[in-house]
Amino acid sequence: MQSKFAKRVATTSRSFTRTILDLTAQSDIISFAGGLPDASLFPKALFKNYANALFEKDDNLLFQYSNASGVEALKIEIAKQYDETTSKEIMLTNGSQQALDLVCKTFLDEKNCIIVEDPSYLAALNLFHMYDADIKTIPLHQDGADLTSLEELFSTCKPKFFYTIPVFQNPTGYEYTLENKQEVARLAKKYDVILLEDSPYEALRYEGAKSTSFATLLPELTISLGTFSKTLAPDFRIGWIKAPHNIIEALIGSKESTDLQNSKFFQHIAAMMIQNGDLKRHTQALIAHYKVKRDTMIQELEENFGESISFVKPKGGMFIWVNFKNCKDSMQLFESAIQKGVAFVPGSVFFADKRVSSFGRLNYTNSNLAQIKMGIEKLYDAYAGFN
Amino acid sequence: MQSKFAKRVATTSRSFTRTILDLTAQSDIISFAGGLPDASLFPKALFKNYANALFEKDDNLLFQYSNASGVEALKIEIAKQYDETTSKEIMLTNGSQQALDLVCKTFLDEKNCIIVEDPSYLAALNLFHMYDADIKTIPLHQDGADLTSLEELFSTCKPKFFYTIPVFQNPTGYEYTLENKQEVARLAKKYDVILLEDSPYEALRYEGAKSTSFATLLPELTISLGTFSKTLAPDFRIGWIKAPHNIIEALIGSKESTDLQNSKFFQHIAAMMIQNGDLKRHTQALIAHYKVKRDTMIQELEENFGESISFVKPKGGMFIWVNFKNCKDSMQLFESAIQKGVAFVPGSVFFADKRVSSFGRLNYTNSNLAQIKMGIEKLYDAYAGFN
Repeated sequence: MQSKFAKRVATTSRSFTRTILDLTAQSDIISFAGGLPDASLFPKALFKNYANALFEKDDNLLFQYSNASGVEALKIEIAKQYDETTSKEIMLTNGSQQALDLVCKTFLDEKNCIIVEDPSYLAALNLFHMYDADIKTIPLHQDGADLTSLEELFSTCKPKFFYTIPVFQNPTGYEYTLENKQEVARLAKKYDVILLEDSPYEALRYEGAKSTSFATLLPELTISLGTFSKTLAPDFRIGWIKAPHNIIEALIGSKESTDLQNSKFFQHIAAMMIQNGDLKRHTQALIAHYKVKRDTMIQELEENFGESISFVKPKGGMFIWVNFKNCKDSMQLFESAIQKGVAFVPGSVFFADKRVSSFGRLNYTNSNLAQIKMGIEKLYDAYAGFN
Repeated sequence: MQSKFAKRVATTSRSFTRTILDLTAQSDIISFAGGLPDASLFPKALFKNYANALFEKDDNLLFQYSNASGVEALKIEIAKQYDETTSKEIMLTNGSQQALDLVCKTFLDEKNCIIVEDPSYLAALNLFHMYDADIKTIPLHQDGADLTSLEELFSTCKPKFFYTIPVFQNPTGYEYTLENKQEVARLAKKYDVILLEDSPYEALRYEGAKSTSFATLLPELTISLGTFSKTLAPDFRIGWIKAPHNIIEALIGSKESTDLQNSKFFQHIAAMMIQNGDLKRHTQALIAHYKVKRDTMIQELEENFGESISFVKPKGGMFIWVNFKNCKDSMQLFESAIQKGVAFVPGSVFFADKRVSSFGRLNYTNSNLAQIKMGIEKLYDAYAGFN
């Protein structure tokens, strides 16, 4: 009775992920599994002040129906983050997950080819599967996309888009070099392929200068996604899309039919927080907190595991992608770790083919320093069984 | 390059509707065209108080990621509106437009047959078209669905659902009698067809007792949609779905992949407003205001147009569906009316086949009494040219 889409929902690894999240919501388990920001750092006093400022304006239309593309003041502020961009190239979405869904709705038919990094963001992989995309993968290296594989796929499978998370990738934390990005952009232009750039973590950069986005390198072929979920709060439900105007128009058409519009309330608050410099100040404070957490986790990993694991130190974002070299199947390590009272996400789920993997993804933003220390010790306890 | 969905977006009457709404947003035009609540009646002082009460709770998790189905306290309050229902049969959506989209995503494949009332809600017709449904229509009478047509279609086309707006229908304002509903439910059960019941206007009832919903008459086969957009405010973006638990589970799967979740903030406010009786008191005040507007429009229509038009007095909701008997094509009347400075929606767009129609839909909730009086006079000026 259900649609093909709904049947495919049932065949994703959604239920496994749910199990992990349910397990790790237990208070006696230290969880490095989710991808949650630290809720104790939400600037609630600021939210309250801005909310009251908004109420003071006494604007009847604040709560009325409005347009599908979002609050103009916020679109203008977002446009400023990109070179030579106007608000006509920006639209706001119900988090960036909705942005992904709208792109699929607007560009994908069944069996259309798309390309993803291997590994990649789980909820995007699940969504592409639900839209019955023909998902091709390219290896992801520490410095970016595997260019040989990318050109081969660009030239043979006519992909609808290449889905890339070039900065502090999920799950790996890897960052494309500028050279790699330039090559990817050159290939995309040569073969006329859209780059679907998902960039939720750029603002959480602990080291180095802001990177050059695909939206800047190849604006005419890039659909770039951003979010305030990692900097302000997930419950604001504000993601955005930056793309050429004709693509934005098509996406707005899909958005309108999907849910008419989003709430304007927190969009106005986000706009005011940017205008007054509060977002920038708050993000700097976040970075200071998260950097210490990252460093603590890395120190604990090195002290406990030594040479028995390997990982690349991420320069930003929320995750460390660890190769548990002594355990060929990290799903087994996961089960053992849960018994010890600590959780992470086994690498397998981030690969399109769900292959057995010795990798695991560890999140450090949603634990305090004591939990990080104790959790890594517990994890090593579990890991020692595999030596 | 775009998907079939996106191409169908372009072939809806969306652009025409946009033109109407753009036109009527001009301040020198009195608009009976939209379906907007009166923004001056939004209880902003209450919203402010509840928002501050929420901030006072100082709950870190208020702004964190959470589950896809919505705030439990609000689901519990909504469940109480139905007989023998628990919160497991309720989910919250980003307005009821998203509820419609999720139902389509979860139940419709291309070319699947569905049944709609003729005429019906424009944005639903557009959405069903975008999902490439095979849209069949049944005549809608003043007392409900045409049962002969309905049984014929139930027995021949294996519809995925019958989309019905049984109370103060959009655009007609008609209300199904209990007898008609019972017959529809009997047929749905006999032929195992889902009733997709869209009920945004029941709370705006000016006369008569609360009706018995399909959700009560045939809970096992009804997906019932509700919303706070007409009673609290559209910008809350809170719609809901009441359906059997297994259907809710499937819809939550679709919701999760679509946009993870909605903002909890206004869901908490809505829950508190119900618990404290404020929603009920506010709705009573709204009804008092809107009833006067409805009565004023009817009086003006009768005084100006006399026997040259016909309509059924709606007992609730937001619209009067007028048969402009002297003008076989109300699109012509619309053009003439715009010249005089008043707008309405020509009936044609509400019919699945977009046929020429002498009907027009007039909204009375979003104009004040002086505008209603002046607007109807202007409309009669335009209409006089067709005598």
